[in-house]
Amino acid sequence: MRWKKISDAVVRRLPLYLRVLEEAYHSGDVKLMSSQELGERAGVSPALVRKDLAWFGEFGKQGVGYEVRYLREELRKILNLDREIRVAVIGVGSLGHALVRYNQQRYREDQHFNLHVVALFDADPAKIHTRLDGLMIHPIDTLAEVTRREGLQMAIVTVPASAAQQVVDRCVEAGIRAILNFAPAKLTVPEGVHLANADVSLELQRLAYYLGE
Amino acid sequence: MRWKKISDAVVRRLPLYLRVLEEAYHSGDVKLMSSQELGERAGVSPALVRKDLAWFGEFGKQGVGYEVRYLREELRKILNLDREIRVAVIGVGSLGHALVRYNQQRYREDQHFNLHVVALFDADPAKIHTRLDGLMIHPIDTLAEVTRREGLQMAIVTVPASAAQQVVDRCVEAGIRAILNFAPAKLTVPEGVHLANADVSLELQRLAYYLGE
Repeated sequence: MRWKKISDAVVRRLPLYLRVLEEAYHSGDVKLMSSQELGERAGVSPALVRKDLAWFGEFGKQGVGYEVRYLREELRKILNLDREIRVAVIGVGSLGHALVRYNQQRYREDQHFNLHVVALFDADPAKIHTRLDGLMIHPIDTLAEVTRREGLQMAIVTVPASAAQQVVDRCVEAGIRAILNFAPAKLTVPEGVHLANADVSLELQRLAYYLGE
Repeated sequence: MRWKKISDAVVRRLPLYLRVLEEAYHSGDVKLMSSQELGERAGVSPALVRKDLAWFGEFGKQGVGYEVRYLREELRKILNLDREIRVAVIGVGSLGHALVRYNQQRYREDQHFNLHVVALFDADPAKIHTRLDGLMIHPIDTLAEVTRREGLQMAIVTVPASAAQQVVDRCVEAGIRAILNFAPAKLTVPEGVHLANADVSLELQRLAYYLGE
């Protein structure tokens, strides 16, 4: 069952709620949590917490709150995080490499962290067919083949801006439907494919605005 | 002059407009741009482009469009990007190091890119007082002193989640008012300090939602 027409703004807050619930669940001493407390810990107003979660079902009881264990499980299902998601990193320069190491550490330390980088790609002949942190670096033109073989569903793109659109086009052709782009470029994807931008420069430029206040 | 009460959503789109204008300006062959074209290139509706920019002044003429060179200059002023902003990277593990290298490359290649990483900090005694890519790594407890001396205004935080709040508190004490946090932790800052989260895991979890569609 999927829930249609839920806005990206709602979806954006779900991982924040999940993080609070994971912390409470693993600490073990919070069984019930009010929307007030969940909101405070997630940095969202209690009314918005209730409204967001109501899109997906009735999870809380008035005056009692949300059952932490249950809501955590449900949110993991809603976000498709109840099963392993196999991820490619395309472009293993210093940023790509750092993201691989970060992912491997998270994956190793947290058995519930199901986002797993399992394949690397690069265009540099000197890197292709070598291993990085235990993973083989494939040439980009094998993306479709490796995607099929490895069951890749998501890609993290850290190639130079000039190559980014071409790489994203290849991801789309290969059937990858969720892409996190770090290249400082405006990219387009067809409907049905989701692209998120993690361009660090844009974030810094946005923050710079507030320095003048 | 500052413009009060402008929503974060508006501010978030300004760097997207600036990027389009920078590209047009440097290509040299586009002198005027309609809100239609600016919107298309930035991925924003033309009506929203006009509405966003109207917060800051009258930049366009109906039926003529925006003068690229002028609007670019004005946006750079609005975002405080018309002068150098000195940035600290706190935590120089693999992600921190990758961000330093990325910044140095951008800064070197683009004379208009005014976000400049000039100081590094770490807690690891083996790293402290050594140089990384030409920059000295300082101990974290000298943050206030180095901030004063170097005129630091912004910090990029890439320390482990468990240390992140403490590091951010130190930034606030040192007078840094804009912080980009990569640690997977919910952090709080007092009013007047701006914190942006660039937690890669949250972005990936959000994208995972769409895999089930």
